[in-house]
Amino acid sequence: MGQTLTEKILDDHLVEGELEPGEEIGIEIDQVLTQDTTGTMVWLQFEALELDEVQTELAAQYCDHQTYQFDFKNTDDHRFLRSAAGTYGAHFSRPGNGICHNVHKENFAAPGKTLLGSDSHTPTPGGLGQLAIGAGGLDISVAMGGGAYYVEMPEVVNIRLEGELPEWATAKDVILELLRRLSVKGGVGKVFEYTGPGVETLTVPERTTITNMGTELGATSSIFPTDEETKDYLARQGREDEYVELSPDEDAEYADEIVVDLSDLEPLIACPSMPDKVVPVREVAGESVEQVIVGSCTNGGYEDILPAAKMLEDREVNKKTEMIVAPGSKQASEILARQGWAAEMMAAGVNFSEATCGACIGIGHVPASDSVSLRTFNRNFEGRSGIEDDNVYLCSPEVAAAAALKGEIVDPRDLADELDDLEAPGVELPDKYDGSKADLISPDEAVDDELIKGPNIGNAPIGEPLEADIQGEALLKMDDNITTDHIIPATSDILKFRSNIEKLSEFTLSRVDDTFAQRSMDADGGVLVAGENYGQGSSREHAAMCPQYLGIEAVLAQSFARIHKANLFNFGILPLAIDEETYEKIEQGDDVEVVTDVAAAVESGQEEFTIRVNDDWEATAQLDASERERRILSAGGKLRLTKEQYEQEGSSGATPADD
Amino acid sequence: MGQTLTEKILDDHLVEGELEPGEEIGIEIDQVLTQDTTGTMVWLQFEALELDEVQTELAAQYCDHQTYQFDFKNTDDHRFLRSAAGTYGAHFSRPGNGICHNVHKENFAAPGKTLLGSDSHTPTPGGLGQLAIGAGGLDISVAMGGGAYYVEMPEVVNIRLEGELPEWATAKDVILELLRRLSVKGGVGKVFEYTGPGVETLTVPERTTITNMGTELGATSSIFPTDEETKDYLARQGREDEYVELSPDEDAEYADEIVVDLSDLEPLIACPSMPDKVVPVREVAGESVEQVIVGSCTNGGYEDILPAAKMLEDREVNKKTEMIVAPGSKQASEILARQGWAAEMMAAGVNFSEATCGACIGIGHVPASDSVSLRTFNRNFEGRSGIEDDNVYLCSPEVAAAAALKGEIVDPRDLADELDDLEAPGVELPDKYDGSKADLISPDEAVDDELIKGPNIGNAPIGEPLEADIQGEALLKMDDNITTDHIIPATSDILKFRSNIEKLSEFTLSRVDDTFAQRSMDADGGVLVAGENYGQGSSREHAAMCPQYLGIEAVLAQSFARIHKANLFNFGILPLAIDEETYEKIEQGDDVEVVTDVAAAVESGQEEFTIRVNDDWEATAQLDASERERRILSAGGKLRLTKEQYEQEGSSGATPADD
Repeated sequence: MGQTLTEKILDDHLVEGELEPGEEIGIEIDQVLTQDTTGTMVWLQFEALELDEVQTELAAQYCDHQTYQFDFKNTDDHRFLRSAAGTYGAHFSRPGNGICHNVHKENFAAPGKTLLGSDSHTPTPGGLGQLAIGAGGLDISVAMGGGAYYVEMPEVVNIRLEGELPEWATAKDVILELLRRLSVKGGVGKVFEYTGPGVETLTVPERTTITNMGTELGATSSIFPTDEETKDYLARQGREDEYVELSPDEDAEYADEIVVDLSDLEPLIACPSMPDKVVPVREVAGESVEQVIVGSCTNGGYEDILPAAKMLEDREVNKKTEMIVAPGSKQASEILARQGWAAEMMAAGVNFSEATCGACIGIGHVPASDSVSLRTFNRNFEGRSGIEDDNVYLCSPEVAAAAALKGEIVDPRDLADELDDLEAPGVELPDKYDGSKADLISPDEAVDDELIKGPNIGNAPIGEPLEADIQGEALLKMDDNITTDHIIPATSDILKFRSNIEKLSEFTLSRVDDTFAQRSMDADGGVLVAGENYGQGSSREHAAMCPQYLGIEAVLAQSFARIHKANLFNFGILPLAIDEETYEKIEQGDDVEVVTDVAAAVESGQEEFTIRVNDDWEATAQLDASERERRILSAGGKLRLTKEQYEQEGSSGATPADD
Repeated sequence: MGQTLTEKILDDHLVEGELEPGEEIGIEIDQVLTQDTTGTMVWLQFEALELDEVQTELAAQYCDHQTYQFDFKNTDDHRFLRSAAGTYGAHFSRPGNGICHNVHKENFAAPGKTLLGSDSHTPTPGGLGQLAIGAGGLDISVAMGGGAYYVEMPEVVNIRLEGELPEWATAKDVILELLRRLSVKGGVGKVFEYTGPGVETLTVPERTTITNMGTELGATSSIFPTDEETKDYLARQGREDEYVELSPDEDAEYADEIVVDLSDLEPLIACPSMPDKVVPVREVAGESVEQVIVGSCTNGGYEDILPAAKMLEDREVNKKTEMIVAPGSKQASEILARQGWAAEMMAAGVNFSEATCGACIGIGHVPASDSVSLRTFNRNFEGRSGIEDDNVYLCSPEVAAAAALKGEIVDPRDLADELDDLEAPGVELPDKYDGSKADLISPDEAVDDELIKGPNIGNAPIGEPLEADIQGEALLKMDDNITTDHIIPATSDILKFRSNIEKLSEFTLSRVDDTFAQRSMDADGGVLVAGENYGQGSSREHAAMCPQYLGIEAVLAQSFARIHKANLFNFGILPLAIDEETYEKIEQGDDVEVVTDVAAAVESGQEEFTIRVNDDWEATAQLDASERERRILSAGGKLRLTKEQYEQEGSSGATPADD
């Protein structure tokens, strides 16, 4: 049986497991990337591993989220990240140089390689045939140490593209159409592999718009085969030698096939406040628009902004509409400036901003209250723009520019009928992507050889190996459905301490009981008790890291949310499932003891554990854990396990993945 | 006796008083400007005046401070300001179009005219022979209503410029030299008038760098005569017809004369953390620099950024230094972009940002902890950059660019010795300032005809006429030296309600007693008691506006800070001076009554007032107030007085100044 392209690349990198959907596989990682909000903890964890240098072929640290640097903590983070990249041998992209996905695509994305990144839109370089996956920070640290990345083998779905995009329809409309059909859950556990005759009609920048926003489908990754377009793009970037021809076998079998006829597409728009609320632009035409933003990792490239610039040339942004262009990279800014397009946009009334994620994550250019904002971004979750009850629409740069000109939502085809000389701009690549590399500091050019930590940058806590005895006070008894936001609030006044676990831990579970953190410190640890679905919500590792820091040894809950349970293992906290009767009977303040040699029991695969409460009554609790999870737990968490493995393998940095 | 240029312009605009230093004069205002942090209250007060339209020749509303729009309140403010400008007939400059002083200079500054602005650097257009003065928001509202502006007649000081600037010395060094000699208090109560043969060697942009930063000397204003350079600048801006020849009489008498020989100047730098801590750059050479910013209203023009761009051409910013360029106006950005300089700077490693005040007021690009930042700005007060214990130096764009290249402070003359081909860039004006006006919406182009208020924009409270009886509880007894920061904290979490007096008032005196605001509301007003120097600190009008809103009728203090006392009159609160014995005897919670027909007594010029406490004992209090201040107080504050005057004068908007 033939292989899909995804299977081929995975096969090339497989170090553990088999390529059966749902099975856990371990793969070797060639490249990693991190950005400035996740990167500090990644490097602090890497520091805790006590390795001399990064073991992957390439690591790149970008500064893109907090580039406006509203707080010295942002600037300190950037300096720390520069020092970490220099110290450990990663490339460093300075604040202002652009969004990680864009700069990585331009400089490093390579067909056939694996890329792991601590950002959900890491799959972007799939448009060049790279298999790129977003992951948690600790996974990145481990990969940088040379360790394998473990993931459930996804299903591979064939997205067969036919036909060719008509005028005014764009790559953004391809992915919006998929979101319309499949919803934001449609890609969970899947890799979308693009095939068919439509592929060759799309340039690489168009393909990366599609792979980037595969994340909104919930997909593990998205990938295109490589071809003359890929080679051409790499050549214009001065990297033709990195081209590799890649395609699925002709008899590859896919879990599913979805056909998209490009010629049927028209300008689409995602309505507030979910990327899959997609309708034709004409259905919402006439809605007054106060703000238009072109940029982001989805549509912030030269090839994305140029069409908008052409539409704005010798015209003016509507007086009641503010238009901001924040290029995805300085390469894009510089080429647009050199060709005169930056000046043209400014002349039209565009506020030309820095190359940053910025407004996409609610940092800057927050919409006015009770107003409509049209953006070329990938997400429009309610409140993400920085204001509750926002009205954010997602669309192509062409639809965005049309709205900026008219002051209301309008299908650009209809605007073209109104304005005689408005022509569909199409897609155009520059002859050479000849931007400067001044802001991309290679390991050879590094100016730092030690870490520079500002006062808000602490150390990554590294757990202690699981002990034989677990006994302590039930420090907090919680209800059902405690979220990671309850455990560590995500408000900016608290999350700004994300690199300062000592300080951040003071806020642990403060939304449930603001005496908890202090009581934990006083008690020198203990256990938590919760109802159903403990830890639902985000994949935030701090929700396990902070309880670990406070000395919490076990969580007894009726059930656990999947990702948080994995994080509990990763941070060395024993997740025990209890029944409703036990939950009801146990009280906050009770003394709880796990009656066994816990360390030995976890290692031996024991599933049932007896807990004794107040030396008075007993109950049974369940540990549902894979062999790998038990190894992690025993070691005191993934960071310590990884460190021990590396130490055993000697200072050469040889790793499981190198075997 | 001949007149100085300042006296000539004042004489042309005088509506009350005589041009004797120290005497109060009333002058007619031709132009007003406001920006986005002060502008909302200005327009809310204008709304309260119930006039149909702005009465000055020209009013301009700029959006420059909060252009990154971190919070929807910023964006709502911008929308409100656009709607106010449209409704009442002002020009509106969109966020991103630039800093008020720069855009005003380019588009509206006119020799011989008076300009009043709600920003301390309003004197910038003095470089074109305009007499421009910064003032409080209420003064702007009144001036927009056609009312005169009242100010103490300043002393006029002659700054005689001789010689010509040598290579690498700049206009910035002229004003830094004056700060070195005279200190930040050296200009209080004065207008600096520039004369002498050195004047004609300076272009208008160089002159405005000097007049802009006269504010740091504490000067009321700074002004240059007009000449061929002025005419030439206006011609390049397409406004040659606005040229007027202006100069002092040959026999003008000045209060003082200071001679600056331009040929003696060298590159200077203001050290942390005061603009007058000026030394030659060579004295601090070698200091490592992490951040360099070129921009601001002082050195953010095309002519300021171009020299830095030339120095950076085909070179790279030091790897350990971040360099940000935030142009002062989009005109500057656009011309720099059109000529290719924006691309050159980006290529060198510059983060090219929006046209904004931004970092100068701690909004964005906050320095890293324990680091040095070099900026071309006008102020480096401790903490202003957004971080306590900052190390901000002020210098010319040339010195800034030299530091960016070398990564440390260096005299550009010494850097030129190191780098063979580094030449002094000099000053160069573009043939035409041909930037677009797309972001400057004239009253004729306005898109709004009514105010658009977001949820954080309230109404300006308008006082009630002084009543015969003042009696109430002494709601708070305070110590000596209560500052305006005690009365209304200036932290951003509180000041963001500056346009929402109802909400802001909840924080009144909260740093002294956080029950005060609620108790005032419950008590339906009362009086305040304080020791010496009540209201010291800033000129913040909210420190009087909020107590007025809470119903405070009188403040009994041992003494008052000068500006706050004026604000108490302006917001209709009776400031009574009491002696120490009375202060000691009176207790919080006492019932205080002013024993007279207060309204009649204030109007009649009565200076001694009897107060009766708890119907038990009496003391004497003093009212020290001019006739104009008594009129204001009687009316219930300046806003109500002005409104009544305008109503009496009929709906034509005829004003004292029109008489």
